[in-house]
Amino acid sequence: MMRGVSLFPGMPAAECPEYVVLGAICDIDEKRLAAATEAYNDVPAFTDYKEMIDSGLVDAVITTLPHYLHPEVAIYAIEHGVAALVDKPAGVYTKAVREMNEVAAKHPEVAFGIMFNQRTNKLYQKLRDYVQSGKLGKLRRSNWIINNWWRPDSYYQQSEWRATWGGEGGGVVMNQAPHQLDLWQWICGMPKSITSKIIFGAHRDIVVDNDVTVIADYGDGATGVFVTCTHDILGSDRLEIDLDGGKIVVDDSSKATVYRFVKSEAEMNENMSMMEVAMLLRGGSMDELAVVETFENTDGWGLQHITVMDNFAKHMIEGTPLLAPGSDGIYGVELANAILLSSWLGHEVEIPVDEDVYLAELNKRIAEEGKFELRK
Amino acid sequence: MMRGVSLFPGMPAAECPEYVVLGAICDIDEKRLAAATEAYNDVPAFTDYKEMIDSGLVDAVITTLPHYLHPEVAIYAIEHGVAALVDKPAGVYTKAVREMNEVAAKHPEVAFGIMFNQRTNKLYQKLRDYVQSGKLGKLRRSNWIINNWWRPDSYYQQSEWRATWGGEGGGVVMNQAPHQLDLWQWICGMPKSITSKIIFGAHRDIVVDNDVTVIADYGDGATGVFVTCTHDILGSDRLEIDLDGGKIVVDDSSKATVYRFVKSEAEMNENMSMMEVAMLLRGGSMDELAVVETFENTDGWGLQHITVMDNFAKHMIEGTPLLAPGSDGIYGVELANAILLSSWLGHEVEIPVDEDVYLAELNKRIAEEGKFELRK
Repeated sequence: MMRGVSLFPGMPAAECPEYVVLGAICDIDEKRLAAATEAYNDVPAFTDYKEMIDSGLVDAVITTLPHYLHPEVAIYAIEHGVAALVDKPAGVYTKAVREMNEVAAKHPEVAFGIMFNQRTNKLYQKLRDYVQSGKLGKLRRSNWIINNWWRPDSYYQQSEWRATWGGEGGGVVMNQAPHQLDLWQWICGMPKSITSKIIFGAHRDIVVDNDVTVIADYGDGATGVFVTCTHDILGSDRLEIDLDGGKIVVDDSSKATVYRFVKSEAEMNENMSMMEVAMLLRGGSMDELAVVETFENTDGWGLQHITVMDNFAKHMIEGTPLLAPGSDGIYGVELANAILLSSWLGHEVEIPVDEDVYLAELNKRIAEEGKFELRK
Repeated sequence: MMRGVSLFPGMPAAECPEYVVLGAICDIDEKRLAAATEAYNDVPAFTDYKEMIDSGLVDAVITTLPHYLHPEVAIYAIEHGVAALVDKPAGVYTKAVREMNEVAAKHPEVAFGIMFNQRTNKLYQKLRDYVQSGKLGKLRRSNWIINNWWRPDSYYQQSEWRATWGGEGGGVVMNQAPHQLDLWQWICGMPKSITSKIIFGAHRDIVVDNDVTVIADYGDGATGVFVTCTHDILGSDRLEIDLDGGKIVVDDSSKATVYRFVKSEAEMNENMSMMEVAMLLRGGSMDELAVVETFENTDGWGLQHITVMDNFAKHMIEGTPLLAPGSDGIYGVELANAILLSSWLGHEVEIPVDEDVYLAELNKRIAEEGKFELRK
């Protein structure tokens, strides 16, 4: 909450949501804490998150921290009756996230959310309804190119933990793409297995993943592709979803076209010849084939985080359902783990991945890197 | 050459090219031959291709036959001094295609071409020049979704050899996608390795591949994706190519946008912050980032085959360079073989594939199918 001052040029300044007040600030970095207390000198400051949680000054924490710390801090908060809105990703490896979810499940009285701010995009909410309700029939293919996560070397160099195995736990799948990994599964469902090809340090001086190509198998004749990278300066964001009863195309997360077939593809396959379909398509009119609907996302990009915080506060106070329950965070981490593991092992991996195998493979890389302690 | 009568509704009727005359017709199917001789009763008819080639009535043959026969017939023709324009794919497995190419290389006096009619698309010719000349810098990623090859079950049932291992040698990668497999390598170059995921008989009653997802590794930090299937009634055709010095987006093989970066991505990575680039992009103007060029393919779709035949005839008579030399056919077959082999073996395969391993794996499937003899 920047009190009307936006950190991003061109983005609208965010208003503090109605039911939210900044109760305390915590940072182990004294310099950063000093800068924060200067800007917010009426707000109590802490260097130890446990002291902040124990202080009674906050009803909820937001874990805007290196990813490994999300489950650790959330678990402490929830066990001490303080609500936790974890930042994405929910964690670096599923073992820790599962433990966090188990603690949260034991404390249903404590609110537990995750900052999947892109779920506030009404366009994606509508598409999810189309797919998950079965209105367009069964899924056949998903295809998302989401390359508009350009990051220069200077970005990676700004913190010690960035783009390391021990400090960040991964690259683009851990830091930039978690939003789309979540939306991908939120709309299309979780795949049964993953095959990936990753270039670690593609066109950048880093050791982690920043050029990622994924093939998903959903079973039942449905497949998917997910492509992301951090070196495409004019990065694409294009999602296509094919279903038995329709097709969806989304450009730039803001413009959707939905085709609802008059007859399902299975029925057309059974009753129509190639020539009949060619005639239909060549005519130029889509009427006999599909009902076409187009819509745009009208939400402001800069307001998504505020919307999640607002929803979280209303959930705590009025019981409003969460846009993104904290326990949902494990799906994106599961996908990220499967993507990295498939590339490390050189073959397809099933979902859920074996969490011990994943952690062992991750620790191998942390050990090789030699900068951070192993995880357990 | 249908003498002004088009077989496809909505397609322009093709004129016989200037230097081409139908010299003879050959078919082993007596019924089909009877129908052909009725339509062209002044043209000599044969049931044995060797007799036709030996007859002295034809200067060139077009091998519009089941794919396995392309190398066999072309080899016989070339060895007997008759020019061969092979239909795509050049063959089913690289071993046979390599043998054909070796025979052709020994007979440089005999014309040898391949029906890659989509190479006549001037849009692709221009894009190839952009990429292969290095005008847009080094390749970083290619991404082609080419799903507009809808085929119903009735199509697959129309001939005994269709959609079989022994008769056709594969599905969509052998029959429909060879054009794009060729264009993909023609524009972007050959990958070093291939990882694929295939569904055999996806939503169709066939045993061969008809839902194919491919990851290519070009080495040097460049990757690619190729997606094709035969069950998408509103199939997409979208090609994206990312390079160090630009980006290309093509929709429906007919509308291209080329972005030529003012500075290369590598230079921007070195000298610009995330914020500076965000400012550039948010401004809405592309001027400081890239020069944008758009163009469309203006060629008639129905004329491509005629253009190839015309070029082939002029090559024979006047020495005009071939749009598609016959020896180029091996690249697409190499890709198709690598795609199938990766999926059969369950791991990434290097290019060139081991041609004996490929043939052995193919013969396994022909034996299981039990309808056709093994290949050697």
